[in-house]
Amino acid sequence: MTMQLAKLKVVTVTLNPALDLTGHLHTLTKGAVNQVQHCVLAPAGKGVNVAKVLAELGAEVTATGFLGIENEAAFCQLFERIKVTDRFIRVQGATRINVKLVEASSQVSDINFPGVSVTAAAIAEFETMLFNLSLDHDVFVIAGSLPIGVTPEQCAHWIAQLQQAGKKVFFDSSNAALTAGIAVQPWLIKPNDEELLHWAKGGPLADQSLAEIAEQLSSTGIANVVVSLGAEGVMWLNKEGWLQAQPPTMDVVSTVGAGDTLVAGMCWGHLNNWDKKQTLSFATALSALAVTQVGVGVKDLNEVITLSERITICE
Amino acid sequence: MTMQLAKLKVVTVTLNPALDLTGHLHTLTKGAVNQVQHCVLAPAGKGVNVAKVLAELGAEVTATGFLGIENEAAFCQLFERIKVTDRFIRVQGATRINVKLVEASSQVSDINFPGVSVTAAAIAEFETMLFNLSLDHDVFVIAGSLPIGVTPEQCAHWIAQLQQAGKKVFFDSSNAALTAGIAVQPWLIKPNDEELLHWAKGGPLADQSLAEIAEQLSSTGIANVVVSLGAEGVMWLNKEGWLQAQPPTMDVVSTVGAGDTLVAGMCWGHLNNWDKKQTLSFATALSALAVTQVGVGVKDLNEVITLSERITICE
Repeated sequence: MTMQLAKLKVVTVTLNPALDLTGHLHTLTKGAVNQVQHCVLAPAGKGVNVAKVLAELGAEVTATGFLGIENEAAFCQLFERIKVTDRFIRVQGATRINVKLVEASSQVSDINFPGVSVTAAAIAEFETMLFNLSLDHDVFVIAGSLPIGVTPEQCAHWIAQLQQAGKKVFFDSSNAALTAGIAVQPWLIKPNDEELLHWAKGGPLADQSLAEIAEQLSSTGIANVVVSLGAEGVMWLNKEGWLQAQPPTMDVVSTVGAGDTLVAGMCWGHLNNWDKKQTLSFATALSALAVTQVGVGVKDLNEVITLSERITICE
Repeated sequence: MTMQLAKLKVVTVTLNPALDLTGHLHTLTKGAVNQVQHCVLAPAGKGVNVAKVLAELGAEVTATGFLGIENEAAFCQLFERIKVTDRFIRVQGATRINVKLVEASSQVSDINFPGVSVTAAAIAEFETMLFNLSLDHDVFVIAGSLPIGVTPEQCAHWIAQLQQAGKKVFFDSSNAALTAGIAVQPWLIKPNDEELLHWAKGGPLADQSLAEIAEQLSSTGIANVVVSLGAEGVMWLNKEGWLQAQPPTMDVVSTVGAGDTLVAGMCWGHLNNWDKKQTLSFATALSALAVTQVGVGVKDLNEVITLSERITICE
């Protein structure tokens, strides 16, 4: 497996990033004062996670989206450290904070705070940025949910514009944003099984299998339909047909960011112009290793390569 | 009551500031994903609260202490807005975040995250800053708890040094920091009843009344012993003897910051060279109004003056 520096340049778009504040405490007692023993503050959001993995693999990455100015520092530090070009549009307020409280029993309570509201002026600024980036970047990864102020239709419009400009768009979202995005046929989508079934629910494909739904999406013009199945691996449909990858059983520490790591792996394969099998086995291995660690990132590239050779690929 | 711009300049010292993240949600369910409906992110910490109230009253305030660089923005914005000169020493990491979750039932769960660790280098930088500020400032308010890395003895040493330089030190802390601070006789201390009894516990004054404990402290050389009694008002012992203030019954919305507001009021009286009665009735009224609002600050100065005329003062 040759690892060469990609010539293609990537933009990751995180419209609704998050700051993960994870606190470990013995027991969470409602109505009382609880003291957290130790904590980690980590910039997150699907697009930010993809940017981090791609940058650690060696890609030239620019990150954009909307960032609240009140708590941008942790993001700025991350981008500087991993050498990602920061082209986020700054907006008033604080980027949403997701508090995760982990008790000694391993029980996790999530408390998700609301994020910033994006104004029309910030959206106009973002559109100018996206247009400028499209002049000298090739691949766009748009990942995650939408902030207050951005509609699914706006997001779909950006996908459509980028593709009309000849760019390849990787799109990973859910709910209304996924529905609107699917309608404009991104180059690649990566729903997980649940998201795909949820998308089909209530429509004409409601009773179909995952494969049938994916085939229907493919026939509408989505070049790559990648469905992540958790421990069951990944299935990928494109013009060459189906390929399914099954990783060995992993010791799961945290599944947070595994889907984003898969997207980054698929993107890295594309940037390197790898064939389908090589891309899928690498991306599946990268994602499988991601569940064995806390936090998103590439710990040991040799480990990824070794594991990628143990991925079972079938058609 | 004349309100004149104070000629004396104040420094507030917040060694361990906090960022209060208050989230309102219907019900907090442990082990689940909880969505906060709306939230407020507010810079806090006793010294920061005192700085805010003093600045809003019209004092010329400089704020120092230690601030984590990862989430300084909310503090910077506050200081800019209220025109407080920011002389905080920046340290690695994030200032501690205190999450307050308020349910529809009004039940509040506090989750206090650990703060930054202050290094010897940061302490040296702070000492230089404190020395420089002492050259052209008159009054120092040191308020709140200590971060990891700062010992009660160091804090007491700073109080002693400032007082040797002829400065008046207002000191408001608790536990070991209060004990160490008392030993060097700040010009004014303002424990609440609980903190004072807790201080006396286990010592020779354990069975004494609040007044007897305060008299003992006064006799060791603390010029002003101010004890806050919650709804029962404030008692103040100095060389002129005892004065007690009793506010009317207030509709309590939140007692957060009421003690800090009292300290600010006492300081404002000193800056204006008011007599003891005027200072105490003003400070008591300011603090009593603080419990009728969410957040720290002076909403309406006329309201404070009107209420200060309704404070019962007895000797």
